[in-house]
Amino acid sequence: MPHSPAFTAVLFGLRGCLVDFGARCQAPGNAPARPTPGALPALHWLREHGVPCAWLDELPAALGQHLSQALPAWVRRPDTTGHAPWPAPDACWHALMQLKADRLDGCVLVSGEPRLLQAGLNAGLWTVGLASCGSLCGLDEATWQALEERERELKRSKATVHLFGLGVHSVIDQLEQLADCLADIGLRRLKGEKP
Amino acid sequence: MPHSPAFTAVLFGLRGCLVDFGARCQAPGNAPARPTPGALPALHWLREHGVPCAWLDELPAALGQHLSQALPAWVRRPDTTGHAPWPAPDACWHALMQLKADRLDGCVLVSGEPRLLQAGLNAGLWTVGLASCGSLCGLDEATWQALEERERELKRSKATVHLFGLGVHSVIDQLEQLADCLADIGLRRLKGEKP
Repeated sequence: MPHSPAFTAVLFGLRGCLVDFGARCQAPGNAPARPTPGALPALHWLREHGVPCAWLDELPAALGQHLSQALPAWVRRPDTTGHAPWPAPDACWHALMQLKADRLDGCVLVSGEPRLLQAGLNAGLWTVGLASCGSLCGLDEATWQALEERERELKRSKATVHLFGLGVHSVIDQLEQLADCLADIGLRRLKGEKP
Repeated sequence: MPHSPAFTAVLFGLRGCLVDFGARCQAPGNAPARPTPGALPALHWLREHGVPCAWLDELPAALGQHLSQALPAWVRRPDTTGHAPWPAPDACWHALMQLKADRLDGCVLVSGEPRLLQAGLNAGLWTVGLASCGSLCGLDEATWQALEERERELKRSKATVHLFGLGVHSVIDQLEQLADCLADIGLRRLKGEKP
């Protein structure tokens, strides 16, 4: 992964981001959700660089715990019960405070869920939209791969346009591209760009 | 007051900002603290424009209530007990959430206290430093006015340099200049500047 300036904290969505969007229908008792392609290496890299991470989702605690079983235990799930729902910025700010982020500068949200991305924008975060693995395409990895290339391309393009329309700062296909994307945001920060 | 784009919320310091810095030593039982020059008109103008306001200070609740008696009751005092102390951004984010601010964009902190201003910068707010009425000059209004002009000028300059050194976006002498300062920040926002 290319060098980039330090990030303060990274927040992720859960379903359609760190774990397969197919997990949307899963209930405790089923097999745990599968991490999306690139999710574990991205978390590992952030851990190595001392960047605290948390995931956000609008789920009952038990289901969230079930779906996140395959993720490293150090990835925090902030308690956001009782807070204003997305797209209010509250859940993001609470997550940052629970990660003890000492500044907004260098905080990033990565998600495929438009309402969560809007919450991140409202909270003043850098936002990275996930086109193909998020709720806009709405397919699990296997179904996605089974599509014809042309159909995947069409869905990906529509999702990308939608995400940029929200005002997100970058759009990538899935977490395998996160490292390069963060490096790019690092360069933009060096040039003085603010989210 | 000149026209400016809508602000989402304005946070103020209490001592040395909305009320006289001389109030620093006051205890319940003494006379209530006096609003600083321009404080009540500024609050009135923000109220008229539908901008929610709150004040922050690191004070026991009873003393805070005593010192803020001369302020309009609609100015909120957010509960920030148990949160990380300034210059952590937490108190500012909590205050914004309690004001139901739906976005960071257009949120402003006004204070003469360097640690609170640093908290506002860390939270991603526009920050307005108060040079002559804050803790850097550290004098109540009467003592300030009794100084020789040259001495006032020296203290004011030193405080201004210190505040800009923190990275605040604007420095004014006292709240009588807040209207023009917000108009200026409004123009900077229109030109795309971000805090």
